[in-house]
Amino acid sequence: MTGYRVAIVGATGLVGTEFIKVLEQRRFPIATLSLLASDRSVGKKLAFAGKEYTVAETSPDSFRDVEIALFSAGADISRRFAPIAAESGAVVVDNSSAFRMAEDVPLVVPEVNAADIATHRGIIANPNCSTIQMVLALYPLHKINSIRRIIVTTFQSVSGTGTAAIDELTIQTKQWVHGQEAVPHVYHYPIAFNVLPEIDAFTEDGYTKEELKMESETRKILHAPEIMVSATCVRVPVFVSHSEAVTVEFSRPMSPAECRTILAKAPGVRVMDDPGASLYPHAIMAAGTDDTFVGRIRNDSSRPGGIVMWIVADNVRKGAALNAVQIAEEMIKQDWLKPGGCR
Amino acid sequence: MTGYRVAIVGATGLVGTEFIKVLEQRRFPIATLSLLASDRSVGKKLAFAGKEYTVAETSPDSFRDVEIALFSAGADISRRFAPIAAESGAVVVDNSSAFRMAEDVPLVVPEVNAADIATHRGIIANPNCSTIQMVLALYPLHKINSIRRIIVTTFQSVSGTGTAAIDELTIQTKQWVHGQEAVPHVYHYPIAFNVLPEIDAFTEDGYTKEELKMESETRKILHAPEIMVSATCVRVPVFVSHSEAVTVEFSRPMSPAECRTILAKAPGVRVMDDPGASLYPHAIMAAGTDDTFVGRIRNDSSRPGGIVMWIVADNVRKGAALNAVQIAEEMIKQDWLKPGGCR
Repeated sequence: MTGYRVAIVGATGLVGTEFIKVLEQRRFPIATLSLLASDRSVGKKLAFAGKEYTVAETSPDSFRDVEIALFSAGADISRRFAPIAAESGAVVVDNSSAFRMAEDVPLVVPEVNAADIATHRGIIANPNCSTIQMVLALYPLHKINSIRRIIVTTFQSVSGTGTAAIDELTIQTKQWVHGQEAVPHVYHYPIAFNVLPEIDAFTEDGYTKEELKMESETRKILHAPEIMVSATCVRVPVFVSHSEAVTVEFSRPMSPAECRTILAKAPGVRVMDDPGASLYPHAIMAAGTDDTFVGRIRNDSSRPGGIVMWIVADNVRKGAALNAVQIAEEMIKQDWLKPGGCR
Repeated sequence: MTGYRVAIVGATGLVGTEFIKVLEQRRFPIATLSLLASDRSVGKKLAFAGKEYTVAETSPDSFRDVEIALFSAGADISRRFAPIAAESGAVVVDNSSAFRMAEDVPLVVPEVNAADIATHRGIIANPNCSTIQMVLALYPLHKINSIRRIIVTTFQSVSGTGTAAIDELTIQTKQWVHGQEAVPHVYHYPIAFNVLPEIDAFTEDGYTKEELKMESETRKILHAPEIMVSATCVRVPVFVSHSEAVTVEFSRPMSPAECRTILAKAPGVRVMDDPGASLYPHAIMAAGTDDTFVGRIRNDSSRPGGIVMWIVADNVRKGAALNAVQIAEEMIKQDWLKPGGCR
């Protein structure tokens, strides 16, 4: 069998298991598959394409015969092992925030800036989930009419935090049903039946790191350091999919009709916008899908020529695993990888 | 006992029962209390200050001996009975949208524009819940530094829709716990573990009526027709309290410190803003309280001199029942009502 020697770091985590699912669904050409995780998960068995794989502990030796290493085990693990993997000859697609803003690391959404892959030196970064779906929907517009300013408010699902947060929402929901008080562990306050404007740590200027990621990553991906961005990132009691209310100011006036026409042709984007029929994207319908959905496209009533829209995508798929696998596919397409085959 | 002859229209509804609670808690001077509702609720018994009251059907004769009529039974009932009540000599405080934009009807948030009560001709309108908490927090700033533009995204609880929606979220949550599929009745899509950018009907320009209310009512309450407003109103699976991410542009640059100082002294407002300690308002903590909480006050990173903030309030209390009772209290203070006493 011809294919690539692939390693998944953080294979037992939420994004790790989604990596496996996406690779399988897209029939990614795999010769060998190493499932790596922390020592707690060693020996665990996971299925891929009808075969069982045993999870091994991530170590400096894990990457000797690996061509593609998909990382999603947090920034610390990435900082520790991604350079080793790259040194060993693998190309790392890293889902953490560790290298995203590093100058020699391309930050890639394939539909937007696949060409940036050419600048890689062994590590390619997968952007933050909230950023991916936003730039995917905004880039086709920006290409035609430069964006000047973005104001975004997010409604982010607990899966963005990981399995512990999914468990927390599950447990708190059951506690509520049984009349028990919710005790927060993952978040500072209960998340069931609540909304919390705190994602990642607060910085000195009052924004959270998550909010600042949406600013810096958007600028880097779009090669547009002049775009002004203000984000408010909010955790909501939703399991999967992030939703975003986005207000955009362009260089020239933009009409909703023009937006719809451009976005209808945009790769990875699906316009779902018929208010009269109450048709707009929402978290539950987007979960498990590959597209980034855009609806509620309208003129900004507070600024002539501006646009307001609603963007929804599965944060575990397009926001993480799918985008990373698409980067790997793009590397193959751009001929950065030679298949290793069965050696 | 000296007091006022009060009627509550829609007494068995969510806001109606909150009217009763708020009147009781604030020891509103009541001589007689008529609890009115539709024929379906006739005969139902409700307690007020240790006494039992029987609900009667709302009819044109219901307002003969009433000085204050608090309405919260929907716009149709208000359109039908509020003019009759006013004609009968009562002052109506109407919680529906029926008269809010009528020229001869003051639209009042007592902390903001109590003076407007003087222009009333028998009907005073209570603003929309999302508008009340926003103008309450913005007015003290606007007084000092005129607001030019507001971009707001709301996270609105199901109690804003009423008891049927509270039931819907409850039932869908239980269905989820039992592995059953959620069947929507009140909303177009499931609300449990979802967010829906649809509140009230869509208009031709793509905004919903709820979003346009935030524009028109804000301008009317602040006497500032020049303020530009764009709202995205979103329903979230929260039982009580609305949360709002608000971006504000002022005439002159405004600093977060100045905002905090001004808001710390503002009536009805409570600043809760210590990001370092993860201290910010959230829906669950605000539920059952009278204040409008403001946190996450920061410089707008997308526009020098602008401000971003997070505003949370109990939509059933300050957003509806409490604000209406405060209007009635203000009428007494302004000497618009003479107590009827026990006649």
